[in-house]
Amino acid sequence: MIGGLAAGPSAASKAARTNPDAEVVLFEQGDAVSYGICEIPYHISGEVKEEDLSPFTPEKLRATRRIDARVLHRVEEIQPHRRTLRVRNLAGGSTSEEKFDRLIIATGSRPRRLSLEGEESRNVFRLKALDEGIALRKFVAEERPRTAVIIGGGYIGMEMADALRTLGIDVTILHNSALPMRVLERETRERVREELEKNGVRFVGMAQTTGFVRGGGSKITHVLTGDGSYEAGIVVVAIGVEPNTDLARGAGIRTGASGGIHTDQRQQTSVDNIYAAGDCCEVKNLVTGRQVYIPLATIASKAGWTAGENAAGGSAVFRGAIRAIAVRVFGLEVAQVGAGEEDAREAGFDPVCETITGWSRVAVMPGSERVVVRLIADRKTRRLLGANVWGREGAVLRANTLAAAIQQKVTIGEMQQWDLAYSPPFTPLWDPLIVAANAMHKKLGTP
Amino acid sequence: MIGGLAAGPSAASKAARTNPDAEVVLFEQGDAVSYGICEIPYHISGEVKEEDLSPFTPEKLRATRRIDARVLHRVEEIQPHRRTLRVRNLAGGSTSEEKFDRLIIATGSRPRRLSLEGEESRNVFRLKALDEGIALRKFVAEERPRTAVIIGGGYIGMEMADALRTLGIDVTILHNSALPMRVLERETRERVREELEKNGVRFVGMAQTTGFVRGGGSKITHVLTGDGSYEAGIVVVAIGVEPNTDLARGAGIRTGASGGIHTDQRQQTSVDNIYAAGDCCEVKNLVTGRQVYIPLATIASKAGWTAGENAAGGSAVFRGAIRAIAVRVFGLEVAQVGAGEEDAREAGFDPVCETITGWSRVAVMPGSERVVVRLIADRKTRRLLGANVWGREGAVLRANTLAAAIQQKVTIGEMQQWDLAYSPPFTPLWDPLIVAANAMHKKLGTP
Repeated sequence: MIGGLAAGPSAASKAARTNPDAEVVLFEQGDAVSYGICEIPYHISGEVKEEDLSPFTPEKLRATRRIDARVLHRVEEIQPHRRTLRVRNLAGGSTSEEKFDRLIIATGSRPRRLSLEGEESRNVFRLKALDEGIALRKFVAEERPRTAVIIGGGYIGMEMADALRTLGIDVTILHNSALPMRVLERETRERVREELEKNGVRFVGMAQTTGFVRGGGSKITHVLTGDGSYEAGIVVVAIGVEPNTDLARGAGIRTGASGGIHTDQRQQTSVDNIYAAGDCCEVKNLVTGRQVYIPLATIASKAGWTAGENAAGGSAVFRGAIRAIAVRVFGLEVAQVGAGEEDAREAGFDPVCETITGWSRVAVMPGSERVVVRLIADRKTRRLLGANVWGREGAVLRANTLAAAIQQKVTIGEMQQWDLAYSPPFTPLWDPLIVAANAMHKKLGTP
Repeated sequence: MIGGLAAGPSAASKAARTNPDAEVVLFEQGDAVSYGICEIPYHISGEVKEEDLSPFTPEKLRATRRIDARVLHRVEEIQPHRRTLRVRNLAGGSTSEEKFDRLIIATGSRPRRLSLEGEESRNVFRLKALDEGIALRKFVAEERPRTAVIIGGGYIGMEMADALRTLGIDVTILHNSALPMRVLERETRERVREELEKNGVRFVGMAQTTGFVRGGGSKITHVLTGDGSYEAGIVVVAIGVEPNTDLARGAGIRTGASGGIHTDQRQQTSVDNIYAAGDCCEVKNLVTGRQVYIPLATIASKAGWTAGENAAGGSAVFRGAIRAIAVRVFGLEVAQVGAGEEDAREAGFDPVCETITGWSRVAVMPGSERVVVRLIADRKTRRLLGANVWGREGAVLRANTLAAAIQQKVTIGEMQQWDLAYSPPFTPLWDPLIVAANAMHKKLGTP
């Protein structure tokens, strides 16, 4: 395996279990493996302790999973015909040649850069590795910035806004679209912006970051956009990621139009004996049928499993993903599963959308909260293509019922019939999912 | 409609909407309609206010839904050939003959009785109508019983134990099986008993109630079983319900082996122009294919809708139910969906069961709780047949994902591929549902 974060360890574990005789080696250029990258915002907020971010050390991977994990080892070249890797030991600096029978590329992604002067200042952070997260938390604790600018209004931007507000910092989000979280439906995005503003976050839409103003001590003091200047004791750049495919392309491995490495359903690349998985790869969208780039840990871990099993002689298939995203925006649960209205239209469907408001529990029960469900269905087949669900309780897990159902190719008519468990402390008599299906049925008209 | 609780008002509303010219009349022998029968335990505990139990008065049904709801009107006979009902006005005492074009029977169920002397004492309660719930709460408030005996360890027994403990009363449950909640799997039932005991409820299994000891003031003081005597300042009898089919059988309408009225998928009975829905009916079990008796409000409301639409000239189908039950047992969420191991075996499947423990959120996130998932799958087809899910958080809504999936005829292999929304505050990277599917896959072996 090349890469020790998500897909790599998943693949290595599965390979070692699939073939007990296999020698499983994992190279990671950083100094840590298999840590909780998704938990970093919650470490910064103080919800998760530093020691809980790293459940696995290389020693533990070796002892419990029979994986020879070599940190601070950078693979510099893949030589597919000779089945060798050139590996640099970053501790000593020497390089060695390592043989493989089967190789799994799990080189992940890297944060996009603004390419502006000042981007490397010591109060500018990205969040693509454990050490950056820990450094950010330390910086806040030691230098107590009053203001933060987050560049990028995607889900990492949301999580960081929440974390930094929790620490009492004034937060501004600069985003290059009018509303946050491009992946959501328009009305959900409006609700997210409202929640940000309710919680004291300044959201600046249609903002193009044009530069940084430097102060003393190699720190940024302000972020500049076309329209203004924003004070920033700390800056977080979260404008998305791109796949790390340099090594793969250097070895002649095919990448797709999405930019990620192309694999078949067995996670095999265009080159024999070489597999790939995780954020360096593209994945098949099960709703639209297209190859897309969705860098998410859920997909990486499943694709990694598949690659690991197959590389070790097994026969596993990873069919693809629907794109399923959840994010906490302060008190709000927000989830998106499957295709949005625009995705659906682009993929050749005739999307019909309907939004309803239901309750998380029986309305008169204490703690009951409104749950909004927006369904996207295909007019002709009446199939559910996607959904947004949000509310202060019971939104994400309900979205997951829809996620599973989309994968089972559910129709709106079938959803109306769903027999779901009901009890006043947990669900209303007519669950919001069924209310939504009934409303969509009405909108679609009698078939 | 005959019956004003769940299926009746659901049918009436749908009929009035389906055919705006229809004259929709609903007869109810009690003095209230369409109230929250399922919320009564939460009224007794103090969580739900009395006024919130009755969202609909007859006046409101008339004004907002165009339903002529006549309370204190008992239908005493159905004359199918003449299409008339004989109706007694319980306020005045007079009877009248009422004509119908289409009739919907929604006479519901009645609580089973012990048939023991003393059962009618004024501190013995059942919970099958609003006035009984309100009377029980009033009795507790005024007479402050120190001890309660609940006869019956089904889900109503669980809810009442929770409610009465909340009021500071010593609670004993007498149940005629070794473990509570026969509908659940054995290990879930053990966990429920443990939760009862943790919360100070005495659970007496294999208890056969043999009599009551009367004190002064027409009250019971003790409940007797074959093995002992239990002090009872208040008694709740919750030993299940049976369908009210007297009227239907008097009209020559066919009932099934389950005891409930038999209908087709349009909710039509064996007699032309007469429909039936709700707890007086049987329903098709979608997993086992059998006609069964499942008196639950979720099923009643959907069947009522279907009957109402069809009686008004529409063409709706209600396919059936899988049996999906949720209950709160103190801090524990417990859910059952689809077939249990024994149901599955009896229905001719070869059930394989597997139980796993996962987490409700990422394990290191604050608030994360263990979630136990037990799957029941068919060995040959690898289809999911049923599940139990329990935990202190995120159990019921996860069970509902499985409920929907069972109805979509999901296989274990498909579940392993599920792309679910993931975010540390809401779900772990490998959701317990997928962990369970992976464990079941392993147990089933490679297909």
